Amino acid sequence: MADPTQDSRAWWRTSIIDIEPGRIDIRGYPIQDLIGRLDFVEMIWLMVAGEKLAPGRRDLLQAALVAAVDHGPLAPSISIARMAATCGVGLNSAMASAINVLGDVHGGAGQECLTIYAAVDERQQAGMAIPDAVEQVLRPYLDKRRNIPGFGHRFHKRDPRAVKLLALTEAAAARDEVSGRFVAIGRGIEAWLGDQKKTVLPMNIDGATAVIFAELGVPPELGRGLFVLSRSVGILAHAWEQTQQGGRIKGPVPPAVGYTYEGPQNKTDE
Amino acid sequence: MADPTQDSRAWWRTSIIDIEPGRIDIRGYPIQDLIGRLDFVEMIWLMVAGEKLAPGRRDLLQAALVAAVDHGPLAPSISIARMAATCGVGLNSAMASAINVLGDVHGGAGQECLTIYAAVDERQQAGMAIPDAVEQVLRPYLDKRRNIPGFGHRFHKRDPRAVKLLALTEAAAARDEVSGRFVAIGRGIEAWLGDQKKTVLPMNIDGATAVIFAELGVPPELGRGLFVLSRSVGILAHAWEQTQQGGRIKGPVPPAVGYTYEGPQNKTDE
Amino acid sequence: MADPTQDSRAWWRTSIIDIEPGRIDIRGYPIQDLIGRLDFVEMIWLMVAGEKLAPGRRDLLQAALVAAVDHGPLAPSISIARMAATCGVGLNSAMASAINVLGDVHGGAGQECLTIYAAVDERQQAGMAIPDAVEQVLRPYLDKRRNIPGFGHRFHKRDPRAVKLLALTEAAAARDEVSGRFVAIGRGIEAWLGDQKKTVLPMNIDGATAVIFAELGVPPELGRGLFVLSRSVGILAHAWEQTQQGGRIKGPVPPAVGYTYEGPQNKTDE
Amino acid sequence: MADPTQDSRAWWRTSIIDIEPGRIDIRGYPIQDLIGRLDFVEMIWLMVAGEKLAPGRRDLLQAALVAAVDHGPLAPSISIARMAATCGVGLNSAMASAINVLGDVHGGAGQECLTIYAAVDERQQAGMAIPDAVEQVLRPYLDKRRNIPGFGHRFHKRDPRAVKLLALTEAAAARDEVSGRFVAIGRGIEAWLGDQKKTVLPMNIDGATAVIFAELGVPPELGRGLFVLSRSVGILAHAWEQTQQGGRIKGPVPPAVGYTYEGPQNKTDE
Repeated sequence: MADPTQDSRAWWRTSIIDIEPGRIDIRGYPIQDLIGRLDFVEMIWLMVAGEKLAPGRRDLLQAALVAAVDHGPLAPSISIARMAATCGVGLNSAMASAINVLGDVHGGAGQECLTIYAAVDERQQAGMAIPDAVEQVLRPYLDKRRNIPGFGHRFHKRDPRAVKLLALTEAAAARDEVSGRFVAIGRGIEAWLGDQKKTVLPMNIDGATAVIFAELGVPPELGRGLFVLSRSVGILAHAWEQTQQGGRIKGPVPPAVGYTYEGPQNKTDE
Repeated sequence: MADPTQDSRAWWRTSIIDIEPGRIDIRGYPIQDLIGRLDFVEMIWLMVAGEKLAPGRRDLLQAALVAAVDHGPLAPSISIARMAATCGVGLNSAMASAINVLGDVHGGAGQECLTIYAAVDERQQAGMAIPDAVEQVLRPYLDKRRNIPGFGHRFHKRDPRAVKLLALTEAAAARDEVSGRFVAIGRGIEAWLGDQKKTVLPMNIDGATAVIFAELGVPPELGRGLFVLSRSVGILAHAWEQTQQGGRIKGPVPPAVGYTYEGPQNKTDE
Repeated sequence: MADPTQDSRAWWRTSIIDIEPGRIDIRGYPIQDLIGRLDFVEMIWLMVAGEKLAPGRRDLLQAALVAAVDHGPLAPSISIARMAATCGVGLNSAMASAINVLGDVHGGAGQECLTIYAAVDERQQAGMAIPDAVEQVLRPYLDKRRNIPGFGHRFHKRDPRAVKLLALTEAAAARDEVSGRFVAIGRGIEAWLGDQKKTVLPMNIDGATAVIFAELGVPPELGRGLFVLSRSVGILAHAWEQTQQGGRIKGPVPPAVGYTYEGPQNKTDE
Repeated sequence: MADPTQDSRAWWRTSIIDIEPGRIDIRGYPIQDLIGRLDFVEMIWLMVAGEKLAPGRRDLLQAALVAAVDHGPLAPSISIARMAATCGVGLNSAMASAINVLGDVHGGAGQECLTIYAAVDERQQAGMAIPDAVEQVLRPYLDKRRNIPGFGHRFHKRDPRAVKLLALTEAAAARDEVSGRFVAIGRGIEAWLGDQKKTVLPMNIDGATAVIFAELGVPPELGRGLFVLSRSVGILAHAWEQTQQGGRIKGPVPPAVGYTYEGPQNKTDE
């Protein structure tokens, strides 16, 4: 019969961190050897992927995380953080309520992009030309009138963040720091969408960060996690700013504006 | 009478980000000028503090954020992230449930340290010697048998993270990158506690990151927010690892171990 | 051009509650006419569904909500609540971290049951016999080796909660308070599963509450919401109890038991 | 040496629920004896307090929970739930983000009321007249210009919910179902505030539910938990309604209204 202590000790197992009194090793490295040597992005990668990150690839990850930190107080995640900050909860809770809504729709676009890029890449690696691979993967989206994440933007005709990220990635590919396969796929999707929709739908921040994550081998679900880390910065900044501005139990619109009631009137309870 | 559109537009106001179609400025800087130029830590500082960060000060902030990312799967925040990952919610939700508990006790130690350091510093700036200032600020803690955050550790006699962080901070002070005032205060508290308690209570990770935050002028509440950003990395890494390990609706201990019921038995409902 | 005040006032619209100074109407009823007249379950239904609930149907909903409140400290949602309560956050935050994980796997079983029951019911209403309808809906689950929610239980051979709920529902059907269609479907699925798997897989709490929700016309996603309301009670009770027991930053297992590290050792950072 | 299995089994202990295969007892009662016998409020009380609730007292708790379910889409908790519902997260997560902000300010007013009532009651039980007890407890609030929770309301001159709750409580006291001590204290505070502030500050929903909780012996922190259970109903109803209305990544104000940027312009990154 198994030793129950052994069973309990094996219930939680990890390859990330080893802790003994006076010793903390991260992925096998004594933590004091990493502090002051790794930057925060290198540490993020070591923690989630378990590897060191070559400088050129680190710079791309840095750029992606920098680019996605914020999109203003009308984004639900940011708005939630600001309202929470007026409700007498700590910054940790304001941040939690906010990052919680970076779900399939608000934060998951990048995750779905990664899935699409991987599907195109799989076909390309098997010999298909990119335009045909894109057609095969994206035709069902158009047929079912499904939103294609990563391209176009409700607000920006051209997303300045995506333009810069793609340029940095192309330069890194030119230096052989990344393969460049996914830049080509992203460009291929842009071109195909332009033909299909008779309008330009340039890559947006989700599509561009997904190109970088794909170049680095980040699986789709983890891509969402990295986006959350990035957006947490904007969430913290806005929650903190709101704390400084004051306000108490602040709702979404001024009280004088109010809301519309469209339900029944004058019901009696019999 | 005020223009109500103007009132609604002024309901949410910020100095962090300015967005127009095709333009995103962070603290006045076009974001494409920051992507590929600022690293993630410089971006964090620009977002929360609104300023650029000198390289030496950036390196200290980097070190603090790297040092605090994780303390293993028995920390409630990490454990919550791992259990949540087995419940069919996205990484964003696993992360949210986890960072939510970095409250006064689990994550707020650094925040309280900052308050203590500020109180000692205030007295020191007014002419009091550090030992006297420390005595004045911390005597009430001892009298009320209150836990003094930042010093001592349930597990580590000497916290390797704190040792390294203090060394880096002292070196930065020697280069005039920071004042060094708070290193002296931290050392002063260590010494005073040693006298009072007849046992060594060296600075721990909370006390050491608080020294760095204090040197950088970070207010206490924001110190907690920065700790949350750091710990989010460990939370993401563990949630992601658990996703890869599998497990479905995983509880805290193995089912075979169970829990202890200590309530009434055999009640009938009359 | 539209009046922008009007646009802002129309941005949030609801049929649930109408508030003017001194007046609060819920679905058209002055709230003071409901307080002391409706019980909490009748209020829940009025709020979510906008209708009054006949007494027999209210009693079934009451039974479902009572039955699902708790399944002990090894359930992740309950464990998270207890650990959070030791971290210096308020009960609201302990509850939030916990209910957040009642997702597709931990709390969504009932939602998926409702979808299955609706699919069987649709076919039955179109003239198909229940066994054939069940075969058509559930065969793909077996083929893809997918878990069928609502039947069987990791722990209970016979779930005492499901037995009672089904009995109450059958009695209500006998009194014409509900149609009884979904009791028949639930029984039909039990029978079919018994044939397929050569083992008894009786309905569990998720399957039984889903029968009641289906009889009441509750859509699947809302069924998950009602389960969350119910489980919130257990979450609150356990968080409160843990607060009374004490404990500070309590992890999933005793420190002496620890966890298993299975990653690399002795790495040097070059 | 202690048996480590025993240690692990004793790590989590509870008096709430006892689970064996085929058996679930709540506070010692087989759950199937409670389903169909206890209403939801009686179950809530049994779970959190461990006792049965006499019918008159149950009716008061029922009334309090019914009264506090909602205060409209401009309340941050409700607004957060609605915005979250447009972000592709499940109802459980929309609810979690929302209840998380029922903190010291937004949901904790009732908790602070309970503390105030207890302080007045302590003095009254020791022989002090209510007006003197109120003066002693509340004078420091006025001196420090602190908000006194439970009385007055930003929106309602007279809160219809509080009027009804107090009437029900007075009637219950007349029937000896509760002592009525806290109704007297509440009235005493109303009177004292009227004298001090030269304006009427009638009891609001927080003050009135706190009277009921105090009559039932609910400790302050648990009072907040019960308020959260109640408000969860409004949160669920609004999140569900928003799901039905549609909307995708919906922010706090219409995009055409926007927000005000008040930060620096035209910075260059040197």
